[in-house]
Amino acid sequence: MRRKIAILGATGSVGTSTLDLVERNPERFEVVAVTAATNSEALADIARRTGAVLAVVSDEARLPDLAERLAGSGCRAAAGADALIEAAAGEAELVIAAIVGCAGLRPVMAAVEAGRTVALANKEALVTAGALMTEAATRSGATLLPVDSEHNAIFQCLACGRKEDVAKIVLTASGGPFRTASAAAMREATPAEAVAHPNWSMGAKISVDSATMMNKGLELIEAHYLFGLPADRIDILIHPQSVVHSLVEFVDGSVLAQLGSPDMRIPIAYALAWPERIATPAQRLDLAAVARLDFEAPDFARFPALRLAREALLAGGSAPIVLNAANEVAVDAFLRGHIPFTGIARGVADVLDAAPLPSIATLDDALACDAEARRATRALLRLPADSSTLSLAA
Amino acid sequence: MRRKIAILGATGSVGTSTLDLVERNPERFEVVAVTAATNSEALADIARRTGAVLAVVSDEARLPDLAERLAGSGCRAAAGADALIEAAAGEAELVIAAIVGCAGLRPVMAAVEAGRTVALANKEALVTAGALMTEAATRSGATLLPVDSEHNAIFQCLACGRKEDVAKIVLTASGGPFRTASAAAMREATPAEAVAHPNWSMGAKISVDSATMMNKGLELIEAHYLFGLPADRIDILIHPQSVVHSLVEFVDGSVLAQLGSPDMRIPIAYALAWPERIATPAQRLDLAAVARLDFEAPDFARFPALRLAREALLAGGSAPIVLNAANEVAVDAFLRGHIPFTGIARGVADVLDAAPLPSIATLDDALACDAEARRATRALLRLPADSSTLSLAA
Repeated sequence: MRRKIAILGATGSVGTSTLDLVERNPERFEVVAVTAATNSEALADIARRTGAVLAVVSDEARLPDLAERLAGSGCRAAAGADALIEAAAGEAELVIAAIVGCAGLRPVMAAVEAGRTVALANKEALVTAGALMTEAATRSGATLLPVDSEHNAIFQCLACGRKEDVAKIVLTASGGPFRTASAAAMREATPAEAVAHPNWSMGAKISVDSATMMNKGLELIEAHYLFGLPADRIDILIHPQSVVHSLVEFVDGSVLAQLGSPDMRIPIAYALAWPERIATPAQRLDLAAVARLDFEAPDFARFPALRLAREALLAGGSAPIVLNAANEVAVDAFLRGHIPFTGIARGVADVLDAAPLPSIATLDDALACDAEARRATRALLRLPADSSTLSLAA
Repeated sequence: MRRKIAILGATGSVGTSTLDLVERNPERFEVVAVTAATNSEALADIARRTGAVLAVVSDEARLPDLAERLAGSGCRAAAGADALIEAAAGEAELVIAAIVGCAGLRPVMAAVEAGRTVALANKEALVTAGALMTEAATRSGATLLPVDSEHNAIFQCLACGRKEDVAKIVLTASGGPFRTASAAAMREATPAEAVAHPNWSMGAKISVDSATMMNKGLELIEAHYLFGLPADRIDILIHPQSVVHSLVEFVDGSVLAQLGSPDMRIPIAYALAWPERIATPAQRLDLAAVARLDFEAPDFARFPALRLAREALLAGGSAPIVLNAANEVAVDAFLRGHIPFTGIARGVADVLDAAPLPSIATLDDALACDAEARRATRALLRLPADSSTLSLAA
């Protein structure tokens, strides 16, 4: 019996890796729905290759092209927000949630509410709607499987004990390109320097988040919602080689860690096959060849984003949403040359200080808070009103 | 409902650590039986402290003293092999098998045959009678919980996946005091140099085994029987800091590792509480303070014991018994100054080459093979016939 899968964000990096694994295991998986933001050509190709019965392009203007490309394929073409929800909460048992930005929120929530197993590769789902999402999962019986390498590592390690026996979890962080940089050098850092991540090949936004370590701050918030631990039981540990993906310490003093080569197909394969495992073409970890692993405590002075994220988590409510939204706008402003590198965390801090922090009861509340925080950040950073960050968020 | 425990070898190092944990958790554990080789004074003290109802001293000559010390305590004193078996296979649900050497074999087998949960801190049980022991456990439904830090680590990591999804297991080894020594220096090594283990505080015999790396070779054999994997799926990895206690690689490329400070109370606590966990006073692992972990491939040229153990495992049958017995005699001869350090592995190799390798169908076969291998090794090394190794083995 093949497992029915929907891939939300099939043309992106996680989507591509997912398809690689699915196509290596045709006896295990059946792709029933695929979606993309705008690339109807690639989406149509994926739909034909996988035999999906539903292909959804977010951008409705691309629907005619998608429909034309799928003519005679047996795959239905659709577009827009409702069609995304249909793809997410339709017949798939497992939903790979890999839509970047807040555009992915509603379809992910629909899959969760429908009780599906949801492989979360979408950071915003938990940062922006963590409480709503995990409450919905509890109600519906949905399983949330993290695909992020750190959270996937923790999820794997948690299998080694009961939740009540967990002392703390430890998120590892490469430290990014400025791990050893002076504060003075960081003030002068250019976008080109900031996007040069040492271990993983990633997009510009997430690379800058790695440089500020806001990425780890957002992961701290995700970990809180995913694993139900308070902020003071989630540590961050600098580990430049990115071989140990994260760790869990149990009350007896045992520490379980998940390690591997930096290949997203490993956590994606785990989510696809869970609770079983499937072979991947990822390079095997050879620790004798790696030879050395280093660890150090994070520097909260040079990386204020870590402190901001912890404070936002402790503040709760909408603070994580404001943190994330302000960060996206500030990173965009940095990449466009409007603000210096150190202005990113400063901008986020200023918005968090100034913004009202409404309580969040619904996804609409969360999305409204997100939009308002973006507007406030643009105003604070004196960015032109039309300096949209949609290209990053959708 | 407290868990009833028998501690075989209560006065030794593992026994002492077990008692420390048991006494910290009086609401969880009830010690019903304790045993010791000869130390009736310490045993009587332990029996009174724990409220055990049976105390057994192996050395029958010590029974009158034990009985006198326990007079009026409500704890029955007994001695000899049958009493050991009674302690092991009596009312205890969990048996801590920490008797050093082949003296522990019969009581451990009795506990396994009685279907008990057996925490194995006795290397000989699996090296000398691995196939018999695991077959008996399969028949009786007994659970074998390894207490050795490496095998305990693997046992913990195996909880993260199905057995059929394990690609290989990796035993870490400190490399011992001669990790970086030249072959020439090893030829001249004195007993004092050989027993200076860098990370763990251990007895002389096991410290020499660490120096020759025969310890890791014996653990390879243990791992084979415990986890049912062939020799070519059990790797050995040098890791001088002894922080990563061992690792398991799954087919997807995920590697799970168990880490911790070098405190035997961690694996003992795991065995005591399994499948739950209990708090221990062991120092928490602080990876930022550890700062650095190193790994390297083992050197089979300078450490021929590793190759001998792998060959003995591949040969199967009685070869592992001969390996272990010859090694014990050779280590004793080295410690007494009769042979050089490098003579240990050479002696073991010669005995393995010369010895008949009878098939092993019963524990009596195993014990007879063990005795014959000891005799053959003494003859080969031209040791006096009365140069007993009983002080090491019992």
